[in-house]
Parts: sequence; C-alpha cells; structure tokens
Amino acid sequence: MINVTVWGENRHEQLEPDVAKRYPNGMHGAIAEGIEANLGESVSIRTATLDEPEHGLTEEVLRNTDVLTWWGHAAHGEVSDEIVERVQRHVLAGMGLIVLHSGHWSKVFQKLMGTSCTLRWRSEHDRELVWTVDPTHPIAQGIPHPMIIDEDEMYGEFFDIPAPDEIVFISSFSGGEVFRSGITFKRGFGKIFYFRPGDQDFPTYFHEGVRKVISNAVEWAHTVRPERTDPVLLRYETEDFYNGRSYEGALDPEKQQ
Amino acid sequence: MINVTVWGENRHEQLEPDVAKRYPNGMHGAIAEGIEANLGESVSIRTATLDEPEHGLTEEVLRNTDVLTWWGHAAHGEVSDEIVERVQRHVLAGMGLIVLHSGHWSKVFQKLMGTSCTLRWRSEHDRELVWTVDPTHPIAQGIPHPMIIDEDEMYGEFFDIPAPDEIVFISSFSGGEVFRSGITFKRGFGKIFYFRPGDQDFPTYFHEGVRKVISNAVEWAHTVRPERTDPVLLRYETEDFYNGRSYEGALDPEKQQ
Amino acid sequence: MINVTVWGENRHEQLEPDVAKRYPNGMHGAIAEGIEANLGESVSIRTATLDEPEHGLTEEVLRNTDVLTWWGHAAHGEVSDEIVERVQRHVLAGMGLIVLHSGHWSKVFQKLMGTSCTLRWRSEHDRELVWTVDPTHPIAQGIPHPMIIDEDEMYGEFFDIPAPDEIVFISSFSGGEVFRSGITFKRGFGKIFYFRPGDQDFPTYFHEGVRKVISNAVEWAHTVRPERTDPVLLRYETEDFYNGRSYEGALDPEKQQ
Amino acid sequence: MINVTVWGENRHEQLEPDVAKRYPNGMHGAIAEGIEANLGESVSIRTATLDEPEHGLTEEVLRNTDVLTWWGHAAHGEVSDEIVERVQRHVLAGMGLIVLHSGHWSKVFQKLMGTSCTLRWRSEHDRELVWTVDPTHPIAQGIPHPMIIDEDEMYGEFFDIPAPDEIVFISSFSGGEVFRSGITFKRGFGKIFYFRPGDQDFPTYFHEGVRKVISNAVEWAHTVRPERTDPVLLRYETEDFYNGRSYEGALDPEKQQ
Repeated sequence: MINVTVWGENRHEQLEPDVAKRYPNGMHGAIAEGIEANLGESVSIRTATLDEPEHGLTEEVLRNTDVLTWWGHAAHGEVSDEIVERVQRHVLAGMGLIVLHSGHWSKVFQKLMGTSCTLRWRSEHDRELVWTVDPTHPIAQGIPHPMIIDEDEMYGEFFDIPAPDEIVFISSFSGGEVFRSGITFKRGFGKIFYFRPGDQDFPTYFHEGVRKVISNAVEWAHTVRPERTDPVLLRYETEDFYNGRSYEGALDPEKQQ
Repeated sequence: MINVTVWGENRHEQLEPDVAKRYPNGMHGAIAEGIEANLGESVSIRTATLDEPEHGLTEEVLRNTDVLTWWGHAAHGEVSDEIVERVQRHVLAGMGLIVLHSGHWSKVFQKLMGTSCTLRWRSEHDRELVWTVDPTHPIAQGIPHPMIIDEDEMYGEFFDIPAPDEIVFISSFSGGEVFRSGITFKRGFGKIFYFRPGDQDFPTYFHEGVRKVISNAVEWAHTVRPERTDPVLLRYETEDFYNGRSYEGALDPEKQQ
Repeated sequence: MINVTVWGENRHEQLEPDVAKRYPNGMHGAIAEGIEANLGESVSIRTATLDEPEHGLTEEVLRNTDVLTWWGHAAHGEVSDEIVERVQRHVLAGMGLIVLHSGHWSKVFQKLMGTSCTLRWRSEHDRELVWTVDPTHPIAQGIPHPMIIDEDEMYGEFFDIPAPDEIVFISSFSGGEVFRSGITFKRGFGKIFYFRPGDQDFPTYFHEGVRKVISNAVEWAHTVRPERTDPVLLRYETEDFYNGRSYEGALDPEKQQ
Repeated sequence: MINVTVWGENRHEQLEPDVAKRYPNGMHGAIAEGIEANLGESVSIRTATLDEPEHGLTEEVLRNTDVLTWWGHAAHGEVSDEIVERVQRHVLAGMGLIVLHSGHWSKVFQKLMGTSCTLRWRSEHDRELVWTVDPTHPIAQGIPHPMIIDEDEMYGEFFDIPAPDEIVFISSFSGGEVFRSGITFKRGFGKIFYFRPGDQDFPTYFHEGVRKVISNAVEWAHTVRPERTDPVLLRYETEDFYNGRSYEGALDPEKQQ
C-alpha cells in the first residue's frame, strides 16, 4: 500500500471560472482520480491544498506520505519557507516527490535542484508529442511512443536544471520547441520525478496517458528502503565501520589558547 | 586572464595556534599561493574572508570573479543568507566555484546541491590515496595515479550529494573508507568542482599535487561563455525563436470573475 | 517467475584441485545456489558451461532466459564469436545480464561496453570493503554498509569502461586501491550489472552478502517490458508515428546514372 | 596544431549525379573546408576515403591523427573489420572521433557503443531545429539557440545508444520527431562526439552553424593527455602503486595436477 498525498495550489480553480469548469474537483482532484484509476487498491490517496493550515502538509501528514505530488503556479510565493524545508527534509529522508508542470518554478523544486528552474514557454494550443528515450524505464511502461497531447502549454529549452539522472521522455511541440519532459533525480534517500504536461487551461490531467505516467511514477518514487532516515554526518573510529558518533563541534576547546 | 577569489573562513587560524603556525598566511593564503605557483600570470588572485564586510564578497567583487574557491568549517552558520544567495546567483550566471574539503557542509554548497551534503569522517592521520577514474579530464592532467597524501582527515561514503556529472577522483583511506573526492557539477551557466583533500590540522594545501588539482580546476571552471547572464523564464511567440518576453504574472486578469 | 541462466566457464574447477575442493559444484553451482537461497520459488535457474555444445547457450536457451549471469576467466578466448553475438543480440532485445568479477575481460562484456575493460589487479588476500554510494538502489537493499569480504583478489582503477549509468558500490582494498565495483548500464532494451567480488581462489560465492547482491541484481535486471524485441531502424512517414517501414537500401536506384 | 583526418565513404558522390553536383569536392571535401574555415592554421587536415588502400586509414595515418571525423552511409558493410578494430584501438588510446549523421550505423560507431545504433528516419525536407541543452559546453559556443536547418533528413527517437555522458543538443523536426542530436561519450582515453545533421541529399555541410559545431567538436575531442597509450591490464604488488607487471596467463601451472 502506497500512501500518496496530492498537493494542489487550488487558486486558478477558485479565481478563474473556466478552470473551475474544466476541473470541477480541482486539478488536484483530477490528478488523484487518475492515480486511483490506475493503481486502485494499492494506493491510499489524500489531497492537500495551499489554503489549508500548514498548506495541509503537517509533519504528521508528510511522515505518513510515501509519495507527494506537487502542482503549483500562481502562488509559488505564498508557500511558506518552513513547509518548503519540511518537504525537502522528508524527500532527503526517503519520501518520493513528483513535480508536475508549472511546479518546475515552485520553491520546493528549486530548493531540491539548486538552480533557477527557468525555461521558455507559450500558451497557444501547441500539440505536444512525448517521446520515450529510455524504453526500459518503469515510468515508460504502457505509454505510447510517441504519446500525443492534442493541445497543451509549450515549455522549451533551455530548462535550467541539473543534468538529470535519467531522461525518460523528451517532448516536441508543434511550434518546434523541445523539452526534457520526464526526468528523474535522486536526492538524499528520496526519488524525484518531474513531468511536464498539465496546465490549468487544458484538460491534460484527464488524458489517459498522462494519468498512466503519473501513476507509474508514484510506484517508481516509492522508496524500497525499509524506513525513513535523515542523512547524517557522523564520526567513525578506525575499524569501527558501523557505530557513528554525532558531531560535537568544529573547534576543539583544548586546542584554543 | 582568470580572476580568482580565494575565500577562507579564517577562524581556525585566529583561534588555534597550531593552525596559525601551520598556515602562517592563513589557509586561504596557502591556497592562493598554490594557484599562483601553477598558473602564474594567467591568473589574478585576491583573497576574501568571513570577517570582512559582506564577507569580502560584495556584488562588485563577485561580478569581477571568474572562479571562486570556498573553504569553511567552524563558522558555516555565520555566513549570511544574503551572501549565500548572491554567490548562488553568480554561479548560475556563469561564475566558476571550487568547494574545498569541509566546504562540503557550507550553506553555499548545500544550496547549490539541494541535499544535506553529509558524510562520515575521522581525523586520525589516515593516509589518503587519490585515484583518477576519468583520465581524460582536464582536472586530472599531471596528477599521479594514485596521488598520495601521507596524512589527512578521512571523509567516507555515504556522501549525500546529487549524482555528479563527472567523477574525476575517488579516494581511499588507510582505515578502508572510500570517497568520491573530485567531482563536477554544472548548475545554471556555472561549473562547480568539489575537491576533498585539505584540513586545518594537516599541511594539505602545501602538497604539490593538491595545488595542481586546484589550479587545473580553476582553469576548468572558468566558463567559455562570453558573458555572465542569469537563466531566465521568457515567453516566445510561435516562430519567433529569439525574442523572449518577460513574465507578466500567472493569473490572467481578464479570465477572473 | 524469473528464468535465470548461470553461465560458468568451469575450467579452473576441472584443472585446479584446490578450486574443485572450494567449489564442489563448480563456481556456477555456488552462484546458482546463492540465487536460489535468496529468491526461492520466484526464480527458475539453470546452469550452462563452456564445454557444452554452443556453450550451453543455444538460441532457445537464451530466448527463455530472463537474466543471464556470466563468470569466465581462463578461457575467454575460447568463447565463440557467434555465441558472443547471440548474447549481445538478446541483451539488446531485453535479456538482463550480470557480469561477475573476471567476466570484466570476457568478449561478451567487451562487446557490450566497446572498451578494453582492463584494470589493475593483485591476488594477495586483500580485504575488500564494499561501500554503497546509491543507497536508494534496489540492488543495495539489505547489504551492510560497508560489506566486508575478508579475503579476495584486488581489482583497482583505472577500470576502462564507459561511465556507468549508476554506481551502486565502490570498493576499497587493504592495499589501498579503489574500484567501481557495482555498476549498471542499459544497452538496447537490456539491463546490465557488473559486480566485482568473486574469485576461483577465494570462497566469495558462499558469502551471504555477495549472494544477496547477485540476487537483488537478478530481480533488477529482469526487464519490465512485456516482450523481447530487437531495436530496429525504420522509416516513418510524416504524421504516421506508429507504422514504420523496413529499410530498403541506402542508394536510390532511380537517382543513379 | 591539431591533426584532423576527415574520412568519407565517397560513394554517393560517385554514383549519384545530384550529390556530385551538390558536393563537387565530395562530402568529405565540404566537411574539411568547414573545419579549415573555422580553425584555420590551428589545424592540419587530410581526407581519406573508402576506396583508398586500407580505406586511407593506415596505422601510420591514425597514429598521426588527433581527431578523426567519420561519414558513411551506403557502404558500411564494405569497411573492413580490421580497419574498424584499428580505429577502435586508436580511440581507446586517445584519438578523438566525430561521427556524423548516417555514421550512426557504421561499424566503427556500433563497435564503440556496443548497441545497434538504430533509430527512426524520413527523408522528406523536414526543417530541423537544433536546441542547446548544455549551454556551458565548449561545443555549443557560438551556435544559435536554436540553430535552424531549413531542410534535412529526419532522425527520430528511439535512438539505441548508451546514455550519453553529455547531451549538448536535442533536435526537433517539422514532423514532430525529436532526437538527441549532439552527444558526447568517453571511451578508453578517447573522446567521441556524435552529431546528427548532414545528408547527401541536402547541402547541410555548407551550413555555417553545422560547420562551427564540427569545428568546436574537433577542438573538444583533441585529448589533453600528453601521449597516446593503450589501456592495459597490469598486476601491481602491494604498496607498489606505479610499476605494473604484464599479464602472464589466467592459470597457474603449479596449481594444476
């Protein structure tokens, strides 16, 4: 059983009637439904949104989340730094993270990447073709090659990210741009997947293939390590390889005058 | 001509007489001398330290720095967040960065890596052997295989970093530990090299090979791009590939009720 | 159910009494027993050896093999080129391959890597410590950090291989050498794991941890793609993304004088 | 001074009048001219073609070649295995190699990659846009982003190659396909660049940007190691890190009955 938390900013849905109509249960609702449709009883899904206390991401919620999905766009700046650090800490300790579309510019993704995560874009009904370049990857299983999305926002290179550990998908757009659109990163003990498609102005999260990719990614991002632990800095004596000692400070009091 | 700024925390040298004796010009002084000895007139070197205003890293200094080297240990927490962000911004815009030894736990390195950068360690006179695993790499040129450092602090895996773009060196220690000790990362338009050897309690920065590696890294990290520019998020119209337009906000006023 | 074929050269066992005594069922026998001990009823294991017709690797055997393990040493040159090409073809079509220890210099591994696969070595009772540098990797699960092998042959860098897709383990030896000892590669639709420990002169394949690594690798190397297919070169007409046409030759008869 | 050998199959030019007209000095001639136009006196260029003795690639020629470029298409099968092995040996020893366009299916490239190097294609006047995804890379300097090629053959994914060390360029085509079109690999002590554009049916090798990329790649592929040496397998005694001994056979005569 994989515990999934689908996080949605949920602002466009409140402010823009066309988005509310397109996504009556919110974009987070549509994403959650897609995961459930694919993974059924092997997942337990909850949603959380920006306007909830602690954005719905309390320490307890994250401790009980195996994989977190993240969609944000209009209100990246309203996400509190404390929650961002909490999410980062849980990723480093082993929580899976799936960052979706405009989440590329979220504080959470920027903090884990260390880069600006900028790109080129255009919202003009481009057709997107999603090509698999790593056909052995579990996230690519069951996905057409190419996967066709009739209309979606365009994202193009240069995408300012670290070189991904794996490039699973590369997209082209009818305007001619290309984008590394399905990419994996390991950070600490956590696994991260960024997936490009999906926009408030298009019904992308109802697309069967997009839903399948996200569901595959949920399974992939779920760590195989038995428990969540923080990476630590420990001192080990010679020939004692297994019992580390916590850090006691950089300056030796006895050495100082 | 490469403009190099050698940043040193310069605290051990002030607080611990044995370190002051070992490094009479400071560790930053020894590092700067090593670069000068190898690169001579092709570099212009300045040093900067924690206790200077703005830690010696004003906007102007960084704008005129092609490659910054970073050594810190006892006072990582005293480095101001504003300067850390400034350094990150310059790296993403194209400044080279060489992080040395205990700088692995600096805010600057953590911010650019997105991970905890923790590891295992022991300061007990281990011999370090630095093995080249990427013999074609410019940073490895002229370095013995292995390079022997008679005594140094030990750093061991697991080192919590993103998978490096390139692993140039792997070290072993007489206690049996291993460490990815010379590793490269590209972030934004900047190039980063982390190099493990070097400690306040050992004369590592007088070691000829260590000095050669750092000097090679200075040349490598100096960007070949003609000017420093920030990665940006821009909108491009269809078929206009070269004239991007700045971001005007995520929410369309006309769409809202 | 994973179909595993454990291939052993089986020469040392015939020619050297001490090896025959150490490995009464052959090294291939010991490897097979270790996989069975860990994976039990989820695998179906057969062995094959050099002196069998077609080295025991007929087209039919390979077609029914999900994962092939390869140990050779004294008779790499006796493996027929035809069988090497057959193994390569099946790997590219999706068969998993685990190359063990001295198999680094086999024709099969060289053909798939494209390099000399040379290294430095010494057979002198070195202790090997196997350190995990990718703790999230499925192959590292349940393996001590470090894993200690009391005595084994030493392999050291420079190991002439392509940069691996993933480095799971790095070993040190009591003599001070280091080695990328657990590494993954994808080639075509197949997954390859090279694992260093294991020698005819040491009882390495009875080591619990070594057996666990090999067993984890069997599970990892088993492709998730539904069927085995050869990578192909096909022509696709504009807007027909799914129906490729076979190659009809590089020269257009109508264009020639 | 970089010694460059431009190898051309030179068959289309002899058999197809339109190609001969498009490339009056042969495709190899056009490629050589482009390198000379960009690098001038810093290179010494010769050409070699299939129909010369030893395909123009004698041991002496290769020994005196710093960087070899390779274009072939209609006659891959006529390249002798002996010459292929010779080229591989020199690459592993440090010669740079630039594989162009249809050279993806050459024996030389397949041998160094270990994969089928197949892909999807169409020769129908697609426009190619070449996007830079590694803007810090020396090969990308001075190249427009995107670089536009008005008409060229299409190559699309899946391209069956090992995951490249670096992806410098990704192309899209007007038909919507994408391709990893500028990619680097290190093999042994040699550096390899594959570059997609260029076809006998289009004047691609007269394109200024294409010529600049190839010229940048010549400079990049020229090794910085001081001399050409074969990767070797050597035995090293404990604590003697620098004096290896050649291999004397896998079986110990004294151990056999």
